[in-house]
Amino acid sequence: MALAYSISNSSFLLSRPSPSNKTTLAASHFFLSLQSATTARQFSSSSAARIRRAGVCAAVAIEKEVPENERPETFLRSADPAGASTSVRARFEKMIRDAQDEVCAALEAADGTGKFKEDVWSRPGGGGGISRVLQDGAVFEKAGVNVSVVYGTMPPDAYRAAKGNVGADNGGAKAGPVPFFAAGISSVLHPKNPFAPTLHFNYRYFETDAPKDVPGAPRQWWFGGGTDLTPSYIIEEDVKHFHSVQKKACDKFEPTFYPRFKKWCDDYFYIKHRGERRGLGGIFFDDMNDHDQEMLLAFATECAKSVVPAYIPIIEKRKDTPFTEEHKAWQQLRRGRYVEFNLVYDRGTTFGLKTGGRIESILVSLPLTARWQYDHQPEVGSEEWKLLDACINPKEWI
Amino acid sequence: MALAYSISNSSFLLSRPSPSNKTTLAASHFFLSLQSATTARQFSSSSAARIRRAGVCAAVAIEKEVPENERPETFLRSADPAGASTSVRARFEKMIRDAQDEVCAALEAADGTGKFKEDVWSRPGGGGGISRVLQDGAVFEKAGVNVSVVYGTMPPDAYRAAKGNVGADNGGAKAGPVPFFAAGISSVLHPKNPFAPTLHFNYRYFETDAPKDVPGAPRQWWFGGGTDLTPSYIIEEDVKHFHSVQKKACDKFEPTFYPRFKKWCDDYFYIKHRGERRGLGGIFFDDMNDHDQEMLLAFATECAKSVVPAYIPIIEKRKDTPFTEEHKAWQQLRRGRYVEFNLVYDRGTTFGLKTGGRIESILVSLPLTARWQYDHQPEVGSEEWKLLDACINPKEWI
Repeated sequence: MALAYSISNSSFLLSRPSPSNKTTLAASHFFLSLQSATTARQFSSSSAARIRRAGVCAAVAIEKEVPENERPETFLRSADPAGASTSVRARFEKMIRDAQDEVCAALEAADGTGKFKEDVWSRPGGGGGISRVLQDGAVFEKAGVNVSVVYGTMPPDAYRAAKGNVGADNGGAKAGPVPFFAAGISSVLHPKNPFAPTLHFNYRYFETDAPKDVPGAPRQWWFGGGTDLTPSYIIEEDVKHFHSVQKKACDKFEPTFYPRFKKWCDDYFYIKHRGERRGLGGIFFDDMNDHDQEMLLAFATECAKSVVPAYIPIIEKRKDTPFTEEHKAWQQLRRGRYVEFNLVYDRGTTFGLKTGGRIESILVSLPLTARWQYDHQPEVGSEEWKLLDACINPKEWI
Repeated sequence: MALAYSISNSSFLLSRPSPSNKTTLAASHFFLSLQSATTARQFSSSSAARIRRAGVCAAVAIEKEVPENERPETFLRSADPAGASTSVRARFEKMIRDAQDEVCAALEAADGTGKFKEDVWSRPGGGGGISRVLQDGAVFEKAGVNVSVVYGTMPPDAYRAAKGNVGADNGGAKAGPVPFFAAGISSVLHPKNPFAPTLHFNYRYFETDAPKDVPGAPRQWWFGGGTDLTPSYIIEEDVKHFHSVQKKACDKFEPTFYPRFKKWCDDYFYIKHRGERRGLGGIFFDDMNDHDQEMLLAFATECAKSVVPAYIPIIEKRKDTPFTEEHKAWQQLRRGRYVEFNLVYDRGTTFGLKTGGRIESILVSLPLTARWQYDHQPEVGSEEWKLLDACINPKEWI
């Protein structure tokens, strides 16, 4: 989906003519369908940059989604030659759907009152998604957990640019469009209690077919994702617990993962105009194809499975903590920062808003309530100040 | 200030290298200083388009602001040759400062409890501003009324492009930078009561010197501005009253002004991803130099003087209207739309956020509190639905 973002980068689309209105619209539908399932939050810029450097006009075509009454067994095309039940596509879809069920069940249990409302949708030619939102529960103000599976086609130039050997293939002959596959899970969880932190996570897999008219050209694939914590107050044992679970998941696979992805997370969730991060980070990675594919699938699976043990114990401990109006007002101010990040910087959100689509799905990541107070300065040394300081100067938590 | 926006358009600056970091930074300081005084909301794109077409790299240089303890008599340079007390510059500054005093006094009187907090700042070489914010009063949740005066220089190419005869002057000789002057008042007023509407207004004047090395080249000048109303509920007599006052101000000068500026307003305050306007409009104009300069100064003055009679009677009538939690929740949802417009579309805000500066001044336009509810659909025919319908399908109110 790094590529998914790349090829649908809005400034890119807006800055040069698309082949037709139809393909521009199709591109937005494509992206938004991911969006509605993944809240499409994080996409690295490296493939995007490569594609922009290549000067590729990259419109993407997929079908419009239709509502469904029931969840299908799989969103994979029955005739997908790469979709055998042992394929990475099929196992990734199963993984994100299992993760959605597991996380939603854990959230409903922790909430005690709120129930998820589910929307299922599909595309006639294959692909679809399941959106779930729990709103105004006992513990959660707003919790969204979405999965999606998308089939589409991208121009061959985008494929070649993403592959990094632009124009090298095909001896100048005109290549056909390249089919792609993308699947992801995305979630934002906003609790009510100011001492219970907001959580965001997103895991995604992207794969192209080989261009049909370039025999022997390889498939491309990438993994991306991350899990990050946004508290209003620092309760050190909670932040340490959260980061420890992330580190443990990373360390099972590669000792460099945690330090690398922790920094990547701090860098991505940066509210530039404030000079502060939106929260206390976690892990973030994208464009990952420099390790064994099975290893990365297992890693993404481990990360998704770590969401419940990383988060639910914190919620259980903090959901009933007594708080004052001042605590709530500070939480609301931090929620305002969340809104600023998502509306101003988040690549998927800003692209989605510019190109149209299912707005409620795109903006499900926004909190139920937020606040902007003129020139609010926490008192130096206060608990509010400590949080702000940690957002300005990211810390090592473990 | 149409030009001010043009020459500091962020995508423009970002898409081509600036001569140096220094000038890029200076450009942002320039714009933000306007911003801090005007909330820099509305800038038309015609000059911007002209400049982009001309391919001009337009960095703008001005000094950094410093806080002041007292309001000076004038922010004009004492040695400003175009700053005589009879000049348009001087009279426009006096007009906006009088308007600031008048509006703030009327707002404090209507509020009864809240008082404006004032910040004064200046630049060593001339120019400065006065920011006033009233927060959490009895009637107003947040009210900001700011004025500013800015001196700066822009590259000669920007001047020529804005003038519309790019490259025609000066026989190819290298021209020097062109000094400019900009002044404006800007205000956003968010009341607490859901039946009392939000108001925004902004009036601005922009003028260039002639390039020093092009004898006889003319000064350029523009007026821009507008006043618009954002209620959560339609109380027809209020909306009619508001639009009537705007029309009356317009009609004193030119019968085409009201219909033209009413439509311009509906077009500008459009939340594209929602397919709805943020409110019920008013008037908006920009890049205005196609009428007599004295006439336009008098028109801007009339518009600014119309703010109190257009708005305060509505506040007096609605500030104590009884309301339910449901009314308040709907107001909060509409405040969320206000946030979406300002963070996603407003040209001054988005530019300001991208380039850095005094964030609290840029974001003073955001409401104290806002709300996002998943998939909220007002019941057809309800009062909430009527407001939404009028935001989707702009109406003629008089």
